Amino acid sequence: MKTLGLDLGGTKIAAAVVSDGKILDATRVETPQTGFADVAEAIAGAARSLLERGHEEVAAIGVGSPGPLDYKAGKVLFAPNIAGMENAPIVAELERRLDRVIVLENDANAAGLAEHLYGAARDLESSLYMTISTGIGGGLFIGDRVIRGAHGLAGEIGHMTVLPWGPIGGDGLLGTLEAIAAGRSIARDASYAYGRDLDTREAFERARAGEMKALEIVDNAARFTGIGIANLAKIFDPEGFVIGGGMSQVGPFYLDRIARAAASYLRGYPDADIRIAELGTDAGVIGAAAVAAQSLR
Amino acid sequence: MKTLGLDLGGTKIAAAVVSDGKILDATRVETPQTGFADVAEAIAGAARSLLERGHEEVAAIGVGSPGPLDYKAGKVLFAPNIAGMENAPIVAELERRLDRVIVLENDANAAGLAEHLYGAARDLESSLYMTISTGIGGGLFIGDRVIRGAHGLAGEIGHMTVLPWGPIGGDGLLGTLEAIAAGRSIARDASYAYGRDLDTREAFERARAGEMKALEIVDNAARFTGIGIANLAKIFDPEGFVIGGGMSQVGPFYLDRIARAAASYLRGYPDADIRIAELGTDAGVIGAAAVAAQSLR
Repeated sequence: MKTLGLDLGGTKIAAAVVSDGKILDATRVETPQTGFADVAEAIAGAARSLLERGHEEVAAIGVGSPGPLDYKAGKVLFAPNIAGMENAPIVAELERRLDRVIVLENDANAAGLAEHLYGAARDLESSLYMTISTGIGGGLFIGDRVIRGAHGLAGEIGHMTVLPWGPIGGDGLLGTLEAIAAGRSIARDASYAYGRDLDTREAFERARAGEMKALEIVDNAARFTGIGIANLAKIFDPEGFVIGGGMSQVGPFYLDRIARAAASYLRGYPDADIRIAELGTDAGVIGAAAVAAQSLR
Repeated sequence: MKTLGLDLGGTKIAAAVVSDGKILDATRVETPQTGFADVAEAIAGAARSLLERGHEEVAAIGVGSPGPLDYKAGKVLFAPNIAGMENAPIVAELERRLDRVIVLENDANAAGLAEHLYGAARDLESSLYMTISTGIGGGLFIGDRVIRGAHGLAGEIGHMTVLPWGPIGGDGLLGTLEAIAAGRSIARDASYAYGRDLDTREAFERARAGEMKALEIVDNAARFTGIGIANLAKIFDPEGFVIGGGMSQVGPFYLDRIARAAASYLRGYPDADIRIAELGTDAGVIGAAAVAAQSLR
């Protein structure tokens, strides 16, 4: 079934017509930073331009949005990187503009669902998606479904406490996985250790080159990511884990460290099956289109 | 539907005929410590004595067993408190002896399912059961089903790492929730701090009396139990939590501390709905009978 998937990001809105996980047509516009009305119009415009290119029969549109979301009300509660998205009634506004079924989904859930159904975990009954970029998010999947949880929080794995009294995160909590092991955390630690501004990329370059300070930072982030994976294996026990997001592209230098750390916190338990995401930045629109298709069943 | 539930414990085997969560008839025998053949015979004997008391039509029998289990093979891999249960083919042996459908379930999953369907969480669509006794176990429930996970590990929440480089647990891992906050951990810490053998009960009595050392130990256990609940709220996001096991009987003195700790690690998130188990020691047989009933659908 042909549906439309939208991925609302801090800089770009991606849109695609998707059938069974395959992108048939796609477009992309800039994300306005001038308030919700403009964001809604930009999303609707991207969708309309695709619908008008021979896809008028599309009956449902999925929107992957940064969270937190109120699924029942169809609202984005706020979006950290998009101005004016407080309490934004995105479902109602897009329904009005596009006259289609609109389905809202957390962006990490959408990307993870795409990997679960069509990407790295397509052969698995259950999987856990972990996206490691500036922050750390995730999603839980059983069968062909997203486990959203009672308040839409399920899969907010970056906010689990793994080191009480550790560094503070953007959520105001100490020692969360995200505050230790996300890209922004690595940049923070490297900048402190080197006494000047360093980004995540340079921190990894210096670690690869064998510089002790950078290597300690990277090892520490990998260790806690491994602790996170081991904890999730004991709590949710998915058939496999899929790691996506920018830091999944660092390669074996980092991923091998994560796998070793996870194994050392899973001694006596079955090994975690850890895989790298396959769909890249397309995962968001493919997953959003998939939840739209599920809504029509 | 009438089914039979068995709860295999370290000292007692409890058996009951159950219909829709209500115990119709029950019996109890001692757990042999003389090897698997005697355990199987004792379980079968308890079941037979109930079947012969007017319940011959029971078609399925559920067995709640300490783990780890191999669900596919119908085996108990080992049971920490029962001798000779290594790789015990419990399903095959009971099928042979009782000529009924035999369903194996982890004991914490069974007790949690009973609370989910008939006890403290009976009004909830999803719940997470946390049993705090000598150790800490748990179970995850959505709809009327146990989430077992890919390797039967789901809900092994006592083994999540919450304090890297913290005290060692029975699983050989440092800083697991169980190693910090279970009954045996409190007894260990109290015995060390007081320089003589203290059990969990005395530690709580001394904490209630305001003794600083005991209070610090109890506060610390409650804090980490709260961290565990907060982590689980962000990972699985159940509608509610049910706390069972011996330590759920300590009362508000302890449970209020746990709730406060959970709230402080859930700032900015919806409050966790934390409830006390209602079915007491009956939960095991009721839940085992429920999984037996589910197997007949």
